[in-house]
Amino acid sequence: MQLQLATWQEVEGYLKSSTAIMIPIGSTEQHGPNGFIGTDALCPEVLAKAVGEETGALVAPTLSIGMAQHHLGFSGSITLRPTTLIAVVQDVVNSLAQHGFDRFYFLNGHGGNIATLSAAFSEIYAESSLGKADSNRPPLVCQLRNWWDGGGIKRLSAELFGDKEGSHATCSEISLTYYAYPDHVKQAEMTPGKAPVGPIYDSSDYRRRFPDGRIGSDPTHASVEAGERIFKTAVEEIAGDWRRFAANGASDA
Amino acid sequence: MQLQLATWQEVEGYLKSSTAIMIPIGSTEQHGPNGFIGTDALCPEVLAKAVGEETGALVAPTLSIGMAQHHLGFSGSITLRPTTLIAVVQDVVNSLAQHGFDRFYFLNGHGGNIATLSAAFSEIYAESSLGKADSNRPPLVCQLRNWWDGGGIKRLSAELFGDKEGSHATCSEISLTYYAYPDHVKQAEMTPGKAPVGPIYDSSDYRRRFPDGRIGSDPTHASVEAGERIFKTAVEEIAGDWRRFAANGASDA
Amino acid sequence: MQLQLATWQEVEGYLKSSTAIMIPIGSTEQHGPNGFIGTDALCPEVLAKAVGEETGALVAPTLSIGMAQHHLGFSGSITLRPTTLIAVVQDVVNSLAQHGFDRFYFLNGHGGNIATLSAAFSEIYAESSLGKADSNRPPLVCQLRNWWDGGGIKRLSAELFGDKEGSHATCSEISLTYYAYPDHVKQAEMTPGKAPVGPIYDSSDYRRRFPDGRIGSDPTHASVEAGERIFKTAVEEIAGDWRRFAANGASDA
Amino acid sequence: MQLQLATWQEVEGYLKSSTAIMIPIGSTEQHGPNGFIGTDALCPEVLAKAVGEETGALVAPTLSIGMAQHHLGFSGSITLRPTTLIAVVQDVVNSLAQHGFDRFYFLNGHGGNIATLSAAFSEIYAESSLGKADSNRPPLVCQLRNWWDGGGIKRLSAELFGDKEGSHATCSEISLTYYAYPDHVKQAEMTPGKAPVGPIYDSSDYRRRFPDGRIGSDPTHASVEAGERIFKTAVEEIAGDWRRFAANGASDA
Amino acid sequence: MQLQLATWQEVEGYLKSSTAIMIPIGSTEQHGPNGFIGTDALCPEVLAKAVGEETGALVAPTLSIGMAQHHLGFSGSITLRPTTLIAVVQDVVNSLAQHGFDRFYFLNGHGGNIATLSAAFSEIYAESSLGKADSNRPPLVCQLRNWWDGGGIKRLSAELFGDKEGSHATCSEISLTYYAYPDHVKQAEMTPGKAPVGPIYDSSDYRRRFPDGRIGSDPTHASVEAGERIFKTAVEEIAGDWRRFAANGASDA
Amino acid sequence: MQLQLATWQEVEGYLKSSTAIMIPIGSTEQHGPNGFIGTDALCPEVLAKAVGEETGALVAPTLSIGMAQHHLGFSGSITLRPTTLIAVVQDVVNSLAQHGFDRFYFLNGHGGNIATLSAAFSEIYAESSLGKADSNRPPLVCQLRNWWDGGGIKRLSAELFGDKEGSHATCSEISLTYYAYPDHVKQAEMTPGKAPVGPIYDSSDYRRRFPDGRIGSDPTHASVEAGERIFKTAVEEIAGDWRRFAANGASDA
Repeated sequence: MQLQLATWQEVEGYLKSSTAIMIPIGSTEQHGPNGFIGTDALCPEVLAKAVGEETGALVAPTLSIGMAQHHLGFSGSITLRPTTLIAVVQDVVNSLAQHGFDRFYFLNGHGGNIATLSAAFSEIYAESSLGKADSNRPPLVCQLRNWWDGGGIKRLSAELFGDKEGSHATCSEISLTYYAYPDHVKQAEMTPGKAPVGPIYDSSDYRRRFPDGRIGSDPTHASVEAGERIFKTAVEEIAGDWRRFAANGASDA
Repeated sequence: MQLQLATWQEVEGYLKSSTAIMIPIGSTEQHGPNGFIGTDALCPEVLAKAVGEETGALVAPTLSIGMAQHHLGFSGSITLRPTTLIAVVQDVVNSLAQHGFDRFYFLNGHGGNIATLSAAFSEIYAESSLGKADSNRPPLVCQLRNWWDGGGIKRLSAELFGDKEGSHATCSEISLTYYAYPDHVKQAEMTPGKAPVGPIYDSSDYRRRFPDGRIGSDPTHASVEAGERIFKTAVEEIAGDWRRFAANGASDA
Repeated sequence: MQLQLATWQEVEGYLKSSTAIMIPIGSTEQHGPNGFIGTDALCPEVLAKAVGEETGALVAPTLSIGMAQHHLGFSGSITLRPTTLIAVVQDVVNSLAQHGFDRFYFLNGHGGNIATLSAAFSEIYAESSLGKADSNRPPLVCQLRNWWDGGGIKRLSAELFGDKEGSHATCSEISLTYYAYPDHVKQAEMTPGKAPVGPIYDSSDYRRRFPDGRIGSDPTHASVEAGERIFKTAVEEIAGDWRRFAANGASDA
Repeated sequence: MQLQLATWQEVEGYLKSSTAIMIPIGSTEQHGPNGFIGTDALCPEVLAKAVGEETGALVAPTLSIGMAQHHLGFSGSITLRPTTLIAVVQDVVNSLAQHGFDRFYFLNGHGGNIATLSAAFSEIYAESSLGKADSNRPPLVCQLRNWWDGGGIKRLSAELFGDKEGSHATCSEISLTYYAYPDHVKQAEMTPGKAPVGPIYDSSDYRRRFPDGRIGSDPTHASVEAGERIFKTAVEEIAGDWRRFAANGASDA
Repeated sequence: MQLQLATWQEVEGYLKSSTAIMIPIGSTEQHGPNGFIGTDALCPEVLAKAVGEETGALVAPTLSIGMAQHHLGFSGSITLRPTTLIAVVQDVVNSLAQHGFDRFYFLNGHGGNIATLSAAFSEIYAESSLGKADSNRPPLVCQLRNWWDGGGIKRLSAELFGDKEGSHATCSEISLTYYAYPDHVKQAEMTPGKAPVGPIYDSSDYRRRFPDGRIGSDPTHASVEAGERIFKTAVEEIAGDWRRFAANGASDA
Repeated sequence: MQLQLATWQEVEGYLKSSTAIMIPIGSTEQHGPNGFIGTDALCPEVLAKAVGEETGALVAPTLSIGMAQHHLGFSGSITLRPTTLIAVVQDVVNSLAQHGFDRFYFLNGHGGNIATLSAAFSEIYAESSLGKADSNRPPLVCQLRNWWDGGGIKRLSAELFGDKEGSHATCSEISLTYYAYPDHVKQAEMTPGKAPVGPIYDSSDYRRRFPDGRIGSDPTHASVEAGERIFKTAVEEIAGDWRRFAANGASDA
């Protein structure tokens, strides 16, 4: 069930059988010459929607803007400062906790969000640990799960793309968005074929060392067909992980 | 052009002819017994997408969560504190200003966002006025435009719904979302037919005075057909307003 | 009763019959060639004092500095950033709520404060809605009322000044301060007679488009005599509105 | 010259001969059974006004609400959190620095403000020291001066009140406000005659140890006549100190 | 060279040959029945000191308090909220950048710091990426290196402790502190021998699932002798990594 | 007992007989040509350790970085902004209050910390006064004590150094660190012998007026021998003061 398309009475009904909610979170940032700027938000969004249909999970609206300061050298990229993103996650979780939700499954599409999301969870827990949480707030469990975390996805991506996969503007994520938005598939030549690798600091450094935005990938190999296989595998893996989590078990993330 | 589906090179290209961008902003909050929780985000989202197709406007991803503290008494509602929303808008605008954007057209779907958005604009301008803005930042123009601001929409809504329109969970906004998501049209009985009216304070007060969430409306009159007329009128009006704004003129908002 | 001139025991006595308090709030900013920089603070201050005498309302000290970033291009103007003003209002309200006050009537003298004040009220309510308020805090009602909101004042100003009134450095507000401080009446020539109009962005833009600070007004028509009529009408209207509010009714603002 | 009663052109004129400004700062808090809640704001306000008349100093509007958390156990007291007060002082100074002011003379009426004001000055200086200040901002000098700092005032208070003076709700400050507002002189019996002394922690502790709010004083000895002598001595001392400060010399505070 | 024992002229001299600095960062939190509360701060402190002696690295004072909200159920544990720790790291880096330092090597002793430190680096970089950094600030490189990151340490710990090592209150870290403070070696019985494992949420949950504070370890195997071997291996590995980093190369962290 | 070298069970034991804790706090900043950058942190650290041994006081790890913006003109100096330091002190106190500590004795080594520490205490108390503290938090007592506050130390310093003592990079503090770290005694010539005096504003002003960093001192007179006498006197005085404070009495600070 998508929260955006539900009524409050339907959510009240959902809460009778589950207090877990799935929250897609991504980023709005360059993904090289043939990747969408929305790649990291669209991937968890389409997967969460499908997992929601398969498992009955309640799916919150996508948090589309994440921590992307290193991409600001490329037109169209948008970042929240880490402290802003922490405040957003805090408000979202505290709002939902008012209704009785206590298990928050963040389906993440952006590696650059991981540290800040994890810090946000600690900021939220610290409200309890330091005695500042709403006295009615139940104990909360916040879980971060990247959509690519499962073993099946890792194997499939290795099979499909080998060492062309890379770590930013990867073949897998671009394929997945092509499958979701086949009318927007882009053609672009890239030089060198495989992008350079290295550590990440600020945005001017990033632009200098990764001139077209990619890191380690050759996404000319991305395709709608590959995207379809990735979609199916990811939905299956995430659905299983969600079911464990929603049943008060541990995510395998 | 949707930012989410564009590459950074396409955005770079867009900036050669325009430095204006449209940013849909809404809220995730109850809309009574037959309205979607995402109503206020979905309305500007579908309108912005259509206006973007008609005018070539670059459309940012929707800021789906707004200032909705008064709705927290109803399951599924999510709020950002005003200070959090100010930080979000500040980061979004400052990120885009790095690329050369200097005219920001926030297409708003939620009355409860107006004050905070306006405060956010002042917080951003104050960076310039107090000398703290990036010295490369161009002078910025931030415009708030509610999708229902135009004279045509007001006349149409009066014609269609008369005094059933109300001010929260209105017939117009629910019709528009029904037109956009016809498979999710809801049936619900409401008592009284027309909801009460009154001022807004905190969420327990709101729940007490507006027991099913509506204010002043009887949205059983909402329909896909009405939604289609509203959609077409709003797109036309907003497109005209955007064209004036993007040409460095004034919005009529 | 003026809070500043009362003892704490007198306030304790007042609380036995009323939990409402009036808080004048203004701004310190240019008001054109013949207006006082303190105009927006002095107007609600003198009116609140008179209303307090007439109705017995407890009147807090004036918050003299508001949100005036757009005026920083003119010497002497002072602004709080919106987030600072939100914190100030939050602290004032939370302090007074400790004593049992629960109805806060902000008598406002500056249009530029409206959005930020309204955001501040939401920030305060959100403490309750998100469960972070002091558990002893009563439900709070924060009301914003501009001194010029009443129908009588609007009619009088139209009668006295017609289209010379304008929207910043208006004939009415300058007349009111001249009546309060007749020894400081200023003489100044202005070109053009009637100032230009337009939207407001940052302070350099404001200075460029409104070179002497006025918007739409010709305040050479301001006078002590007009000020006296405005004063009497405003006191009467605000006193009535306060009486309704203090009796747990609704302000007509 | 009072900033509130000046035009921006008059301030522009003042800046040709001086870049120093006097800012009265006080507090709104209980002052025992016969002291005004506004005592700490009214004292620097009336003194600053008189010094402004004598020396031509430009006097900003009084910051009437300070750091008074320890007084919140007594009705009518209002506090800003220290971090809020720091933000307020920062914004006031940065606004005025935009116009060319660079010497800020805070005439203080409340011992409880001293630490926070001093921290605020460091926060402002740190903008320069850490390279975050407006690049056009001149080097700034922020001076804190308590109105009772001068040797003459100390001698006079000893002569007038001896060991009845105390440290909160003192005979001197209450006399000064009685001189300024003779129509509001209060009569109150106090037991014990001389209030207890001790350190200050939070507001419940304060209320428990200082049951009527006074510390160490017996303000039944306050009088209009004493207030007049204090007023004259203080004005003379502060005027001298201001003249040194405004001439780029050191305050003797 | 230890910063704490150097003069400013010695630091000025150091900057002629290197702009890199090592900053030990730890935590103050329970480490089970026989581990020091300071374990996570003491480990990087003693290692940094030794590496400083061997390589000439300038070593800042240890940031002894980190992100330890999950340990607050155990007496003596202290945490900074993530947003506080971000501010601290930001101020430390910005201060040192004023002097010309531009390579910051955080030698970390606490897994719970990693996310927040990484978010802090992004917050700092975002000052550059969003154009808010001091215009004189050089491009900065912030590196996080856990003292246990090296392959040699991992092998040694596996050899010494096998599956008794665990992940909190590990045999290795306790041995290292015993080597550094042999007079404080503790004796304690533990049941069960090997502590349970699992995910980390808030502090009450932690206390319930890890009743004596350990996670997965049996630190009765810790010893001064093991500590000595760990110390030597760690110093050697970190010294090598520092030399690469200080020579503008990449850390292997 | 040093917190860093204790187990959580030992702290739990300590709390059975005392709820007071000593927290050394200093600064990392230039101390002239022959003083350590760590002087202000090392002095309270070595004294607290000795007092802890003598009295059994529990001693927290030193907060080594304080408010030192005015020293940023000298290499190696590090500051926290006042608002950052307030947040740090707030988190430290609130963490320890979770365990039952309610008397906090900050042994301070830096005059520049006094105002900000005092503001931090008020910020913490305001959590109680405004009803935002953890409802389980006991009433808290925060005490600031400079190590040089005692009468014995003042007499000894006058005897040893007379008018060479000064107010920054004093003979006493440098002697004390020489006694603690005799291997690091520095030799440096200074011109003039006795440094200038004056008020403190921002860091460029400080550097210009105090070119080698000292204020009013001639620390060539510092020595290990003098340091030993200072150490013994200070330990004795602080131990006595701590004993009074820990027994719920008043510090003489």
